[in-house]
Amino acid sequence: MTETPAATAAMLAIGDELLSGRTKDRNIGHLAEVLTVAGIDLKEVRIVGDEPHIIADTLNTLRREYDYVFTSGGIGPTHDDITADAVGAAFGLAVREHPEAVALLEAHYARRDMPFTATRRRMTRTPEGATLIENPVSVAPGFRIDNVFVMAGVPDVFSAMLGKVIETLPAGQAVKSAAVPCPYGEGDIGEPLRAIAKRHEAVAIGSYPRFDGQRYSTEIVLRSRDEAALAAAKADVEAMLAEMAAREPD
Amino acid sequence: MTETPAATAAMLAIGDELLSGRTKDRNIGHLAEVLTVAGIDLKEVRIVGDEPHIIADTLNTLRREYDYVFTSGGIGPTHDDITADAVGAAFGLAVREHPEAVALLEAHYARRDMPFTATRRRMTRTPEGATLIENPVSVAPGFRIDNVFVMAGVPDVFSAMLGKVIETLPAGQAVKSAAVPCPYGEGDIGEPLRAIAKRHEAVAIGSYPRFDGQRYSTEIVLRSRDEAALAAAKADVEAMLAEMAAREPD
Repeated sequence: MTETPAATAAMLAIGDELLSGRTKDRNIGHLAEVLTVAGIDLKEVRIVGDEPHIIADTLNTLRREYDYVFTSGGIGPTHDDITADAVGAAFGLAVREHPEAVALLEAHYARRDMPFTATRRRMTRTPEGATLIENPVSVAPGFRIDNVFVMAGVPDVFSAMLGKVIETLPAGQAVKSAAVPCPYGEGDIGEPLRAIAKRHEAVAIGSYPRFDGQRYSTEIVLRSRDEAALAAAKADVEAMLAEMAAREPD
Repeated sequence: MTETPAATAAMLAIGDELLSGRTKDRNIGHLAEVLTVAGIDLKEVRIVGDEPHIIADTLNTLRREYDYVFTSGGIGPTHDDITADAVGAAFGLAVREHPEAVALLEAHYARRDMPFTATRRRMTRTPEGATLIENPVSVAPGFRIDNVFVMAGVPDVFSAMLGKVIETLPAGQAVKSAAVPCPYGEGDIGEPLRAIAKRHEAVAIGSYPRFDGQRYSTEIVLRSRDEAALAAAKADVEAMLAEMAAREPD
């Protein structure tokens, strides 16, 4: 079985509130799940604060290293929403009101009989050449520029925008996974599991300890894009557990 | 009021399971809260997978840039627990069984009448010269080497280890914060709030939208190490809201 290399991705979560602990991020885990299903490999996540040159430098590192970069946060209307400017700076592009975004928000505020203030107009600013990412929750759009997808930090909005984005990306071959519950602790399975991992190089095998307050158990998780390899490794893990159970009375 | 610059910190969360979405990180937000109280500035977080050279390279970048680096994950007994080796590689140090860790675990397994297997012995390995971080939950220790604190990924254990670590660090001047609830949306407060933020440069002012399904409101959060500056900025925000309320009937 030949394997096309999967597309790679990074996430850049932006916001002082994530680094102060005031807000607990919920977007990273969600993006990770969505990309896994889409067959795109999330390789790295970074969280940085509201500092324009740090956002720009980090974005430049990530967009050159990975096929896609997804950002969250900093695209609202207030003075601390600086992501569009930082992304413009990273690409060396001017940041302007995007005509489609202006039209969307103009119509939105007219419907609600609210003034389309200068502050609200800030939410229409994108680097030149960006295309919009639809926001089915609260209208103000995100945007894509080159391989960078700039989305909101509010989890409902991030998730809705990501749903729109993911439809536009070529689906890769999804990683298949299998979980094998294991009644033994990691200290008991470590040696045989290491041997199995060595025999099945196309399969990533992780073990995750659980402690119910009394006794350790483990969940063994196998992951691969190669279904046959995954099945073979899983069979070996199950055989290992059967053998350990048979020895139990000793 | 003169201000000593606060100590800076970064976090490196390690594990394929965080990037696949299988496990949702809970340590980043906890570390952020604890450091905020301790007066240490968390400046950056990175999440990487179980790849030794990536862990080592990232750690080398972070430990040179920040006063402290806190890591989570990868210090259990199985083949996918590679953090100790990666940290050793980053520092160019040999990784050996730490005699105190061996004594701790030997006694622990003897008390529980369990064999101290080669796999379990892996949890005693640290780079040479490391000092142990106590694990009040499940015994197997973390370790400190230079400015790097290597801790478990299981949230209860991470949190317990961090509690031990934080006692050993010089406390900085904690950032004080004040939250002002605001009945208006960000689009309404953006302009006056920007002016206030400009007038109070020692205070970081963030605004966080809330949407109850019907109407937007905002929480305005002010943060500073300078209490007088914080109080002055807060008074300005409250005056802004009072003025907006007075104009409401129009």
